[in-house]
Amino acid sequence: MIGGDAAGMSAASQARRLRGPDELEIVAFERGHFTSYSACGIPYWVGGDVEERDRLIARSPEEHRAREIDLRMRTEVMEIDVAGKRVRARDVDSGAESWTSYDRLVIGTGARPIRPDMPGADAPGVHGVQTLDDGQALLDTLARTRGRRAVVVGAGYIGVEMAEAMINRGYRVTVVNRGSEPMSTLDPDMGRLVHKAMQGLGITMVNDTEVTEVRTGEDGRVRAVATPDAEYPADVVVLGIGVRPETRLAAAAGLPLGGRGGLLTDLAMRVRGHEDIWAGGDCVEVLNLVSGQEQYIPLGTHANKHGQVIGTNVGGGYATFPGVVGTAVSKVCDLEIARTGLREKDALRAGLRFETVTIESTSRAGYYPGASPMTVKMLAERRTGRLLGVQIVGREGAGKRVDIAAVALTAEMTVEQMTALDLGYAPPFSPVWDPVLVAARKAATKVRAF
Amino acid sequence: MIGGDAAGMSAASQARRLRGPDELEIVAFERGHFTSYSACGIPYWVGGDVEERDRLIARSPEEHRAREIDLRMRTEVMEIDVAGKRVRARDVDSGAESWTSYDRLVIGTGARPIRPDMPGADAPGVHGVQTLDDGQALLDTLARTRGRRAVVVGAGYIGVEMAEAMINRGYRVTVVNRGSEPMSTLDPDMGRLVHKAMQGLGITMVNDTEVTEVRTGEDGRVRAVATPDAEYPADVVVLGIGVRPETRLAAAAGLPLGGRGGLLTDLAMRVRGHEDIWAGGDCVEVLNLVSGQEQYIPLGTHANKHGQVIGTNVGGGYATFPGVVGTAVSKVCDLEIARTGLREKDALRAGLRFETVTIESTSRAGYYPGASPMTVKMLAERRTGRLLGVQIVGREGAGKRVDIAAVALTAEMTVEQMTALDLGYAPPFSPVWDPVLVAARKAATKVRAF
Repeated sequence: MIGGDAAGMSAASQARRLRGPDELEIVAFERGHFTSYSACGIPYWVGGDVEERDRLIARSPEEHRAREIDLRMRTEVMEIDVAGKRVRARDVDSGAESWTSYDRLVIGTGARPIRPDMPGADAPGVHGVQTLDDGQALLDTLARTRGRRAVVVGAGYIGVEMAEAMINRGYRVTVVNRGSEPMSTLDPDMGRLVHKAMQGLGITMVNDTEVTEVRTGEDGRVRAVATPDAEYPADVVVLGIGVRPETRLAAAAGLPLGGRGGLLTDLAMRVRGHEDIWAGGDCVEVLNLVSGQEQYIPLGTHANKHGQVIGTNVGGGYATFPGVVGTAVSKVCDLEIARTGLREKDALRAGLRFETVTIESTSRAGYYPGASPMTVKMLAERRTGRLLGVQIVGREGAGKRVDIAAVALTAEMTVEQMTALDLGYAPPFSPVWDPVLVAARKAATKVRAF
Repeated sequence: MIGGDAAGMSAASQARRLRGPDELEIVAFERGHFTSYSACGIPYWVGGDVEERDRLIARSPEEHRAREIDLRMRTEVMEIDVAGKRVRARDVDSGAESWTSYDRLVIGTGARPIRPDMPGADAPGVHGVQTLDDGQALLDTLARTRGRRAVVVGAGYIGVEMAEAMINRGYRVTVVNRGSEPMSTLDPDMGRLVHKAMQGLGITMVNDTEVTEVRTGEDGRVRAVATPDAEYPADVVVLGIGVRPETRLAAAAGLPLGGRGGLLTDLAMRVRGHEDIWAGGDCVEVLNLVSGQEQYIPLGTHANKHGQVIGTNVGGGYATFPGVVGTAVSKVCDLEIARTGLREKDALRAGLRFETVTIESTSRAGYYPGASPMTVKMLAERRTGRLLGVQIVGREGAGKRVDIAAVALTAEMTVEQMTALDLGYAPPFSPVWDPVLVAARKAATKVRAF
């Protein structure tokens, strides 16, 4: 196993469950200090919602070793020799190298953060938030920093979550975003709702611009962030501009990569064309079941599923990962943001003709205390009426409603079929027509015309 | 339209939307004082969460009339003359009667409460909660009552909701229940969790017994509730023992009724064997898509869908109601209770062989603040692995998770397929494996053995 986080160690654990140490020897290499941790939890640790770093660690190296997994920490794999069925690993601290042979190889090398190529990007006070070490470094900076102005670069889910974290830490937050609206995983009309809500939370949103420089003061620390048009004072800068697949090792070994740089696998998560090599997690591309196209979606939930499937197969069982529908939820303070399936531009790119509807409803019966407004946008294919995608922006109770659409997409339901879905109803939980059904009704009427 | 509540008036509104007054004359009879109100909201009005009665009214008689619906309030239909295509209606106040002929008839007569046949059942201080009038009468009693002891008879969803309402009003609450555990819509092992949680809320749960008598004091008012073994002092008694279909009118007209006394319809909600008569809401039986059998499920959400389908068909369009999967959610204080599909006894009755699993998980990532425990029980068919049912008991975030299973049931998914569902994940919303997926994984392993 190359990589000791979600995909790799899930695979290791599952394989061990199926095959004892007498039957299967498992060696895992991890170049960092931690295993099996929730990178998705880092913004909440930084923001103070989660008090201790170790709460984010699902399973420590010792716990893995107790399950007879030969886990080699601080050991980086430098080369995969596919023909020789072996890997060359290096002890990060001592520099010592050695070859280890394998019958079956699992690649779970994850992602690496996109680092903007600009002056000052490495200045003290500029932080990424991909790893626990990153999070600790940021927290150390916050403890030392007197000023209270933070600039977050990027307005995807990491960006908005970090905006919330910095607000919770008492910072004045500016988010600088390359796109026309925050959350480019939504259509811009829905991103606009996020934009407004973030402004309502006191966050300064700067869209349609790029950071060209991080400016430093006399002490060498970050002082401001510059765009072509302006300068934003900053005592700390958080980079939330996403990641790309960490596949340099795989590329050097000649393994097949897709258009987004991720490893390509079959349904059993086996690297295409390679009987004995599996890959999963943030280093692979996944099939989008709605568009029929490969996509790069680095998410812990997929990594865990990949690991489970790989571990089952490596352990001699049988399991597949059929693909994703592109579900994601996130929140910024009390705003919940969710999406699944295709955005308008995804549907166009996939060659689909479609109709869109957007409706306003509430999370609970309108008369029930705490009912909060919710906007649901729905895309449905012309002629067939097949559901193509759903985006939801609202407050409490909005986010997980996207699961209804996620299952409907998986089942290839039409919006007409969805209008009859028997969803949970009681006044504290939903209006008598769930907001997703209200959207489906409207969409069904609209596609009927084609 | 006979009946001016959810099914009838939804049908009227939808038909009017499709056909103007020049094309279609719509006459609606309602024997009560109100139209289109949320009976499901009554417990929250009584409990004080909803302050005004009128908040429960979705559309008033005046609003319906403004849409050119000839709504005749306080007018009860006494007879349906199927052969003559006419109905005989009586003005409730004046007693005057007249015949009205129809081309198309819609029956939305709803349900009537089950009234226990025992001494004292009609004593002052004993209240049902089916109609707005019932709710007002109960509130009037509460305003006049000095004592603070309430007995709720029945522990179905109305019973537990009324238990919460009475707690919110400051009463000491005893719930007397015929079944072995509260919430007989769940399997007893899951009902047991509700039982414990209700005790934790300070509610006295008395199971496995029946109320034999309501005892009155010298003033003629309720004083206590008696079971064969005990007497429970009561200043007010709430009857929450459910309803049966109000189909006396339909039965007298020779229309087809099912085993549970509800009208039988086809998929277009047309009364079987009758081209020009539709029926929907609490007076009909519905097809359970999982068991393939007819069932009686009086719920506002079904009534609204029925009305929508009927109105479309009556208005010259085409729509069907394919059936239900038996989804229901309710809450008692902060406890959320949800179910969909078949219980063990339903599955046995339907002739199915199945496996069950029960898992414990949390509503959010374990490390995220507010993560609360959740128990998920899942039934899956042997051999096919088809999902048969899900029951969930937990706190915030538990109830609406049942929608995942409701859609999966509709799509006839297997539990193996469910393990790959791409559900919304982020630490504030879910563990990396959603509790429903944890149950599906365990169920998939179990059914694989058969």
